[in-house]
Amino acid sequence: MNKDKEVTIYDLAEKLNISVATVSRALKDDPVVSKKTRKKIYDLAEEMGYRSNHFARNLRNQRTDTIGVIVPRLNSYFMSTIIAGIEQVANSQGYNLIISQSSESAEKEVRSARTMFNNRVDGLLVSLAYDSDNLDHFSSFFKKDIPLLFFDRVAEHENVTSVCIDNRRAAFEATRHLVERGCKRIVHITARSNRNVYTDRLQGYRQALQEHGLPFDESMVMYNNLSQEAGYTAAAEILAMPVLPDGVFVANDNCAASCMIGLKKKGIAIPADIAFVGFNNDPVSTVVEPNLTTINYPGYEMGEVAARHLINHLNGAALITATNTILLRSELIIRESSLR
Amino acid sequence: MNKDKEVTIYDLAEKLNISVATVSRALKDDPVVSKKTRKKIYDLAEEMGYRSNHFARNLRNQRTDTIGVIVPRLNSYFMSTIIAGIEQVANSQGYNLIISQSSESAEKEVRSARTMFNNRVDGLLVSLAYDSDNLDHFSSFFKKDIPLLFFDRVAEHENVTSVCIDNRRAAFEATRHLVERGCKRIVHITARSNRNVYTDRLQGYRQALQEHGLPFDESMVMYNNLSQEAGYTAAAEILAMPVLPDGVFVANDNCAASCMIGLKKKGIAIPADIAFVGFNNDPVSTVVEPNLTTINYPGYEMGEVAARHLINHLNGAALITATNTILLRSELIIRESSLR
Repeated sequence: MNKDKEVTIYDLAEKLNISVATVSRALKDDPVVSKKTRKKIYDLAEEMGYRSNHFARNLRNQRTDTIGVIVPRLNSYFMSTIIAGIEQVANSQGYNLIISQSSESAEKEVRSARTMFNNRVDGLLVSLAYDSDNLDHFSSFFKKDIPLLFFDRVAEHENVTSVCIDNRRAAFEATRHLVERGCKRIVHITARSNRNVYTDRLQGYRQALQEHGLPFDESMVMYNNLSQEAGYTAAAEILAMPVLPDGVFVANDNCAASCMIGLKKKGIAIPADIAFVGFNNDPVSTVVEPNLTTINYPGYEMGEVAARHLINHLNGAALITATNTILLRSELIIRESSLR
Repeated sequence: MNKDKEVTIYDLAEKLNISVATVSRALKDDPVVSKKTRKKIYDLAEEMGYRSNHFARNLRNQRTDTIGVIVPRLNSYFMSTIIAGIEQVANSQGYNLIISQSSESAEKEVRSARTMFNNRVDGLLVSLAYDSDNLDHFSSFFKKDIPLLFFDRVAEHENVTSVCIDNRRAAFEATRHLVERGCKRIVHITARSNRNVYTDRLQGYRQALQEHGLPFDESMVMYNNLSQEAGYTAAAEILAMPVLPDGVFVANDNCAASCMIGLKKKGIAIPADIAFVGFNNDPVSTVVEPNLTTINYPGYEMGEVAARHLINHLNGAALITATNTILLRSELIIRESSLR
């Protein structure tokens, strides 16, 4: 077989000595063609390495059966769980994914968006980078009515549905739990970002303090990149405070775990001296000792819901512009790190 | 603007009142066209939402600038680190990724391969599922000379280059380290699979025992799916053994960590009673107490090397069929869990 020449339905028809129309119908699984003939055609197609003429079909359809996904980082347990959920739904509905990471950079996000546009994705799912502060790079999608959906790290836009949890409420519950356990000086460790996930958690933290008559003190909010390394640094910063806190609420589990470890090494008892609550219910939360109280964040479901909502829109089953925000449930999981 | 009508270079040319040939050259960044004119054309293209005619171009080129990636699971810290490395290289070279997960099922892997083939990927990167026992589903790629590369979970095939670490040697070093620390009854926890990563580690374990005059006992090898849950079950199984082991070598860190936790809860001292070595250098290894001795597995680099090797082949810079296996370095990282 000539490797460079594509096998066409004409080749199949000639080889089997049947009409091109029959071959075409059989490959679309049209019951007009007998089962036996369909099987014969399928087998030959397989044997000869026939590929359905995707591009030509796409030129007619204006559809590529492809969904673009832009995430801040691929190598995060939480993000990869969301992507697994997206992939599961997309794949079952016959869509392929083109995946790109912005590496937490607004500039790279702009480039990723352009690549997705040029690749003519049917729709786009985006979790925004730390420092993306406008949505101009998505305007070409809006102009072409290509549906766009934000998940987890979202922003307000009239054309875009967002899928996320109620970060403010989850943070409120986490902080209230610490207050109820007798904490009066609660540190909040988070990322310096205008992204909803961080600003909303900060708001929830403030609100819980306020509703329980505790003062909000800006110096009790520590900003870092929430990495494992940042947690060790945060522990040192906490130890250097003139008065130690009695509770810490961290915006992710990885950073919370390493901060706990750093404090324990200096003789701080957890939860007796300082109680801890994290965020995400990452596997690390059941490994660190004591086990970490945290917010269970339904990543896989978030991916499934985002993909399903976008695909329903593409199939005309539901209009994406009619919804503004889809909130998923989250819950506080209480473990030993906060039980003082 | 009519949303359904694609903007063409004819529209751009007409609007600017310059020739179609000039527009075409400018969009290819041909220096024949003055910088000023090129900018003018770019700006208008941006404004009008022009998309390069990807499909038509692809029909001519026979190239899609797309690389397919099939992995067993997306939601594993280790796998998502590899994918981040692949994405980094692919993106910088102008390639897009289509990603699919086989969910550890040979059957789903067959379907993923077919989808990739129909999407006319320029090349394919695959990490094989637990139970894939033949490579027939890739024969259509071989027939068309579409390059295929295996990474991490690999298999022998004359047309395929594999990128992985020397799992046998890494396991040998892990086991030898336990022997050198005085362990005489060493359990190995692994997955029941014919995949290289597990069979090679078992071989390295056996070889280290043999070279140090210790007997190999099949009942000391425990098989499970290496999940966190499986680690707790393994701890119960170890506690039920007539004579307790004094060392455990586990084929991943998550399972090792939870097994350690399960044993500690029953009063077993680690490393004094039982020393532990894991595999992967997952973040969990520096959170569990005592910190876990493990094999540092260069996931990000593995992704980069795999993608670069495939793209070099596509660009004609290096022939993939000339190489058989690319082995990356791994190393034993000694922490407290094995220091007895």
